[in-house]
Amino acid sequence: MKQILIHEVGPRDGLQAEAGVVPTEVKLDWIRRVADSGVDIVQVGSFVRGDKMPQMADTDDLFRILAKESHRAVLSGLVLNEKGLERALEVGVQLICMGVSASDTHSRKNTGMSTEDATRRIIATALEGKQAGRTVQVSVQSAFGCGFEGAIDEARVMDIVSAYLEAGLTSISLADTAGHAHPGQVRRYVQKVLELDPTVEVTAHIHDTYGLGMASVYAAMEAGAKAIETSFGGLGGCPFTKVAAGNVATEDLVHGLQRTGKRLDIDLATLIGVSKDVARYFGRDLPGCVYKTGAILEKRTESATDEHR
Amino acid sequence: MKQILIHEVGPRDGLQAEAGVVPTEVKLDWIRRVADSGVDIVQVGSFVRGDKMPQMADTDDLFRILAKESHRAVLSGLVLNEKGLERALEVGVQLICMGVSASDTHSRKNTGMSTEDATRRIIATALEGKQAGRTVQVSVQSAFGCGFEGAIDEARVMDIVSAYLEAGLTSISLADTAGHAHPGQVRRYVQKVLELDPTVEVTAHIHDTYGLGMASVYAAMEAGAKAIETSFGGLGGCPFTKVAAGNVATEDLVHGLQRTGKRLDIDLATLIGVSKDVARYFGRDLPGCVYKTGAILEKRTESATDEHR
Repeated sequence: MKQILIHEVGPRDGLQAEAGVVPTEVKLDWIRRVADSGVDIVQVGSFVRGDKMPQMADTDDLFRILAKESHRAVLSGLVLNEKGLERALEVGVQLICMGVSASDTHSRKNTGMSTEDATRRIIATALEGKQAGRTVQVSVQSAFGCGFEGAIDEARVMDIVSAYLEAGLTSISLADTAGHAHPGQVRRYVQKVLELDPTVEVTAHIHDTYGLGMASVYAAMEAGAKAIETSFGGLGGCPFTKVAAGNVATEDLVHGLQRTGKRLDIDLATLIGVSKDVARYFGRDLPGCVYKTGAILEKRTESATDEHR
Repeated sequence: MKQILIHEVGPRDGLQAEAGVVPTEVKLDWIRRVADSGVDIVQVGSFVRGDKMPQMADTDDLFRILAKESHRAVLSGLVLNEKGLERALEVGVQLICMGVSASDTHSRKNTGMSTEDATRRIIATALEGKQAGRTVQVSVQSAFGCGFEGAIDEARVMDIVSAYLEAGLTSISLADTAGHAHPGQVRRYVQKVLELDPTVEVTAHIHDTYGLGMASVYAAMEAGAKAIETSFGGLGGCPFTKVAAGNVATEDLVHGLQRTGKRLDIDLATLIGVSKDVARYFGRDLPGCVYKTGAILEKRTESATDEHR
């Protein structure tokens, strides 16, 4: 198994699902600590309209403040359209994430466009971002199933991936927006993308709605995914409806990796501390386990034969 | 991947971890429904001293009552010593489960004996059970790590497995009592047992303490495990300390298997209903996901290429 990169998306995917707006200073505290913990990327926010999503309204401010600081992690931002790209470029975002939903229903609800039209538009926007000298990651949302449509034809997903590759976009995230993924499916999809182009940097973004999240993440890693998008404490989904869940918990995955001697460069205690603070802030238990249990005391790491092949 | 058998241990491993004693009639309702849902085995209770573990004090009564009924599932009982075996034989238990802890500290706390002495004793007891015409499953507890000792030497685990095999005991459960297992370790241990004897019926019993439970269960299935021990709603561990968790939730695993067209013979709605009732009874959310979310509506099952190889 390759060295796995950790992309913390809690400040964006986690916080945008909460009803309340977290103050900028609180977000900054969480983001700064995670960004210096050793995780590779932290997603600061989303360049969506603040009136449409007040939880993300301070995204530009967050980047302006963080741009004056020095942190170990790369800071990423989510961009939904041309206007969002302008804002991201203006505040100097280095890693810009964009995506298209493989579900026509989901795509129309989010963008007013079919998947096909949205793909053309997002590719054009992504290429603008690259021309501006930024790193761009493109995603396929609802890649493993859709809360509205149910099953999504695998060919639709691979068509979007192929369109990305033809445009020279080789950092691709397969996103399980609704949490419908299961391990065999994730393994196969990651393998298929790598068959299309072995140089693709595949990221897996898996929500744990039905309890298969971590199993699917391991399947993705075993199949050759390079990065996993995770959320502190497993924050995410909608706390008011049970039928939604957050990404796999950052600290649970890092703890698992460290059990086999991987990513020992990440300060797990910092991640646990942040997730404890996030849980305290929202006043409820989050789905993550390790922030509650602490790490396994024995630090013996397993041999290479334990690697996930 | 083979057809996976589901062994529901909630009525034993789940309920013995609760402070209160669940009335026999309530247990009977849950056991009867699960035992007719299509799962293969239901563990009714433990033949421990009632004064030491009042939660299990009605185990003999439960078997006497259930013996007069007809259910789809095999009913199993946990036996810790010779006295327990006598009781299990007397009430006609067909599948008797016994075990030894690979951790000397854990073994002495549970049995007052070293792992070595406990192994000799449990093998003798198991052979008595077989001679009495019962099916016997033997387990290695704390196989993947110990809450007291931390890491457990893999050789200790395989020595116990070898002792079982030499005694002709070929139904073997690897139990992650403390939840220390990680997927690579589980895969390797299951493979090693099957290398010792390909005819062994390997069962995996995995607690989800650190968030790797389902990933480890999938690793066990991919490595050739024949059965998985699960708990309704993921009930188990100690609700008063966070550093303990139950087995992987029965309905979450069955839902995952049904996503790939497996175990469609199991009535998931029944399992979900029982877990909802168990959660309602204890008045708290249980770790399981699917009893809260319901099953994914689309019933399309994936192709054989989705099987977990």
